[in-house]
Amino acid sequence: MDLGINGRTAILLGSSRGLGRACAESIAREGVHLVINGRTAADVESAAREIASTYGVTATAVVGDAYDEATQVRLLEAAPRPDIVLLNGEGPSPAKFGDISQGEWSEALHRGLVGPLTFVQKVLPGMCERRFGRIVAISSAMVKSPNSLMSLSHGTRLGLTGVLKGISKDVARHNVTINQILPERFDTARQEQMARIAMKMKGISYDEARAEQVASIRARRLGRPEELGDAFAFLCSAQAGYLSGQNIQMDGGSYEGVF
Amino acid sequence: MDLGINGRTAILLGSSRGLGRACAESIAREGVHLVINGRTAADVESAAREIASTYGVTATAVVGDAYDEATQVRLLEAAPRPDIVLLNGEGPSPAKFGDISQGEWSEALHRGLVGPLTFVQKVLPGMCERRFGRIVAISSAMVKSPNSLMSLSHGTRLGLTGVLKGISKDVARHNVTINQILPERFDTARQEQMARIAMKMKGISYDEARAEQVASIRARRLGRPEELGDAFAFLCSAQAGYLSGQNIQMDGGSYEGVF
Amino acid sequence: MDLGINGRTAILLGSSRGLGRACAESIAREGVHLVINGRTAADVESAAREIASTYGVTATAVVGDAYDEATQVRLLEAAPRPDIVLLNGEGPSPAKFGDISQGEWSEALHRGLVGPLTFVQKVLPGMCERRFGRIVAISSAMVKSPNSLMSLSHGTRLGLTGVLKGISKDVARHNVTINQILPERFDTARQEQMARIAMKMKGISYDEARAEQVASIRARRLGRPEELGDAFAFLCSAQAGYLSGQNIQMDGGSYEGVF
Amino acid sequence: MDLGINGRTAILLGSSRGLGRACAESIAREGVHLVINGRTAADVESAAREIASTYGVTATAVVGDAYDEATQVRLLEAAPRPDIVLLNGEGPSPAKFGDISQGEWSEALHRGLVGPLTFVQKVLPGMCERRFGRIVAISSAMVKSPNSLMSLSHGTRLGLTGVLKGISKDVARHNVTINQILPERFDTARQEQMARIAMKMKGISYDEARAEQVASIRARRLGRPEELGDAFAFLCSAQAGYLSGQNIQMDGGSYEGVF
Repeated sequence: MDLGINGRTAILLGSSRGLGRACAESIAREGVHLVINGRTAADVESAAREIASTYGVTATAVVGDAYDEATQVRLLEAAPRPDIVLLNGEGPSPAKFGDISQGEWSEALHRGLVGPLTFVQKVLPGMCERRFGRIVAISSAMVKSPNSLMSLSHGTRLGLTGVLKGISKDVARHNVTINQILPERFDTARQEQMARIAMKMKGISYDEARAEQVASIRARRLGRPEELGDAFAFLCSAQAGYLSGQNIQMDGGSYEGVF
Repeated sequence: MDLGINGRTAILLGSSRGLGRACAESIAREGVHLVINGRTAADVESAAREIASTYGVTATAVVGDAYDEATQVRLLEAAPRPDIVLLNGEGPSPAKFGDISQGEWSEALHRGLVGPLTFVQKVLPGMCERRFGRIVAISSAMVKSPNSLMSLSHGTRLGLTGVLKGISKDVARHNVTINQILPERFDTARQEQMARIAMKMKGISYDEARAEQVASIRARRLGRPEELGDAFAFLCSAQAGYLSGQNIQMDGGSYEGVF
Repeated sequence: MDLGINGRTAILLGSSRGLGRACAESIAREGVHLVINGRTAADVESAAREIASTYGVTATAVVGDAYDEATQVRLLEAAPRPDIVLLNGEGPSPAKFGDISQGEWSEALHRGLVGPLTFVQKVLPGMCERRFGRIVAISSAMVKSPNSLMSLSHGTRLGLTGVLKGISKDVARHNVTINQILPERFDTARQEQMARIAMKMKGISYDEARAEQVASIRARRLGRPEELGDAFAFLCSAQAGYLSGQNIQMDGGSYEGVF
Repeated sequence: MDLGINGRTAILLGSSRGLGRACAESIAREGVHLVINGRTAADVESAAREIASTYGVTATAVVGDAYDEATQVRLLEAAPRPDIVLLNGEGPSPAKFGDISQGEWSEALHRGLVGPLTFVQKVLPGMCERRFGRIVAISSAMVKSPNSLMSLSHGTRLGLTGVLKGISKDVARHNVTINQILPERFDTARQEQMARIAMKMKGISYDEARAEQVASIRARRLGRPEELGDAFAFLCSAQAGYLSGQNIQMDGGSYEGVF
């Protein structure tokens, strides 16, 4: 399937590893030029180099926390007219609701809600003017079925979900779409970290923790990052211009609710 | 993007025209062999012939109402081991809630709910056994925001939505996914028919009726059938195996709700 | 709290036992005159007699399946101008999806969807004209989180949910509200029956089956019918006129989803 | 209907005027002792005085912004063991998405999300221990159908919605419920303010702006604060202990979606 985005330009926040990296690969394969971002210079630079050489696209490395103003400025210097934007970033650690401090709330909300929206404010007018834009956020399945241990995560991400939905209605007429992918349990470093946390919390072995993760998913396996990458690529395609404001769960069929 | 379904087989209910035909084209292009179905022999046969010659796949014509037992038997004779099934069919006409008769309810429920589920009963065990299945239903955006004039449609389709969701949880472990696409206002004969109904109901011209349709969509245009076809193709892809139980609106960003 | 419905009249389908009976008691206590309905003459008549003598309201017994035309006619003869209508009826038995016959579908859909809607068609115009109406359906928590063993139930009930929602938008301007209560695991004969089914299906004792029911509820207890009855009474109140089109779960806080 | 809360104690944030005041009246009528809160001393004190004298309950005035730590401490000094808590506060002003500053985000999130959750952290353990708690937040219908002009409001409120839902699952076993009411267009000072904003934005008269408000509601009227107050009272009742984690719209039947 030709996605019709050969030659387009994308800024991908949090794309040096894991799901973000998979998204980068899936659209590089389609001929999209990329700005790769992450906080660890070595990771970002090697990702950019590998992707550029594998797919024959330009891939610029911008190191820094994507939710700091200074990094956002540099991202846009690297690609002043992005057609595609991925909003992605590391989620906060689990914490008991009663233990969360006001400082932790502020930090999570800045990273997960205010920061991404500030970046959207910067790119949206140009996308509307140029009549092409594809904004996709990697959120979490928990925005639809929250677990109090992840309050910092879903509290933040649900706020973002609502704001993005509101905006999506305004910009649809300019061929700018805004969608979210809601992953649950992909086989990345994040799930390894969650398994280690479960080991401590429940006093189980690493293998048991991993087995519990698999058992919690209806598909009886974890997701593969490249599956999410390809769903992202489809949402970025030219032919996905009539599909906006959606929250698509990739959770191995696990969500209990109808909608 | 390689969808990984070259050589697979699909039975596509209601696929000689409109959205169903677009779905057929999008997966034929990926090398899927097809059974084309519809009620008008000339349409079904020409669709099968054109698709086979354009895409170099086999395309078998099975004429008949897909929700009659006899037609279902012939569909499965044509392709006893389908990998992909499209559930699609013409929706009922608008009617004032107070005017709907018990007979109209029975007819709509048989065509839109009992019939499709009977066909799913027939194909699901084999898909689970062969560890690959992609079932996609074309529903309607109205299942999430019902309008009483379309009670026969959303009453029926919501029932189907719920049953498919329940089943999807059971079969995810067998790499069988079940999803729905919820279209609103695609540029097909259906919207021309709806425009003609609006002309009579509101005393407006055809052009005015069409303009109202466009104005009702946030994207300020109708959807193109091939856009839906490609979304269908993506849901049928090998790499969409972790994506199930979803109801994806294709409505030009028009739905008001967050979820 | 004064519910402002003293002297009003209600027709309560399926109200001789269980949740329906609890609804009857809660509004009889507020001075509402009732038509009690059920299929077993002895139950209906004793319920009517007991309620009339306890609460000092008139309570008329109408025996018969509420979804048969003849019974509906007799219900309206007993109360030609109802202010309040309860839609309630016994749900279908669990069944494996693959085993459900077309006849079972037709039966479930007639009882659970077509029948209730036919009754709504009969009472709605008068409610709108008189500018007061409260229609409440007892549905099931499963309409939001379906389990394939109950396909006959949620397939039917979701269809009803959608149609009632569509209508509710039209009649809000006439001070007619339509809402649903979505119960999960109330301490009625229904849960005893479900426990007996679980005994056979899982080879466990009755006490174990009951304990599993309790463990499945976040509140760690079953609901009490009078709790549902009072929620019903509140939805019927004069002051609930601005609350319509809602699906309120009474499930001990068990539903996983946000909305 | 006896709500079974005579003699209970409530802390009501933002309860000197409007919807919060109506909530106070509805439970004072049931014999609940109150702590009234607001930022304007004269309003808070007169509300406390009037309610105490009308309903014969104690009503303590605590002046201050409820989301400041110091005020929260004083609220709990006034009622160290609250049975009922209302989370309510003035929403942010409308603003174009592109114009919202990081400072405005921080302020809105602190007031609408972090502050209320900090208060919940303080009261929840005691409620669980005493095995009775009713927490109700007044949110906004926009959390389900966001409008970008109110991004500060629904972005904040949706985050709160998710966190409260997650917690509600944990505490249901202790007879502590957490619910939200989602109002749209009640006849309070807030709607007068919104009408004045609409006058300026659209160049219309005050009467036209009010008429537009009425026309936007399916019930063709604004809600009355005492209607919301009584719904709040019902959610606080002893018999509502099996009803938790719900988001109940009070919007005159206006929300388009099924769920």
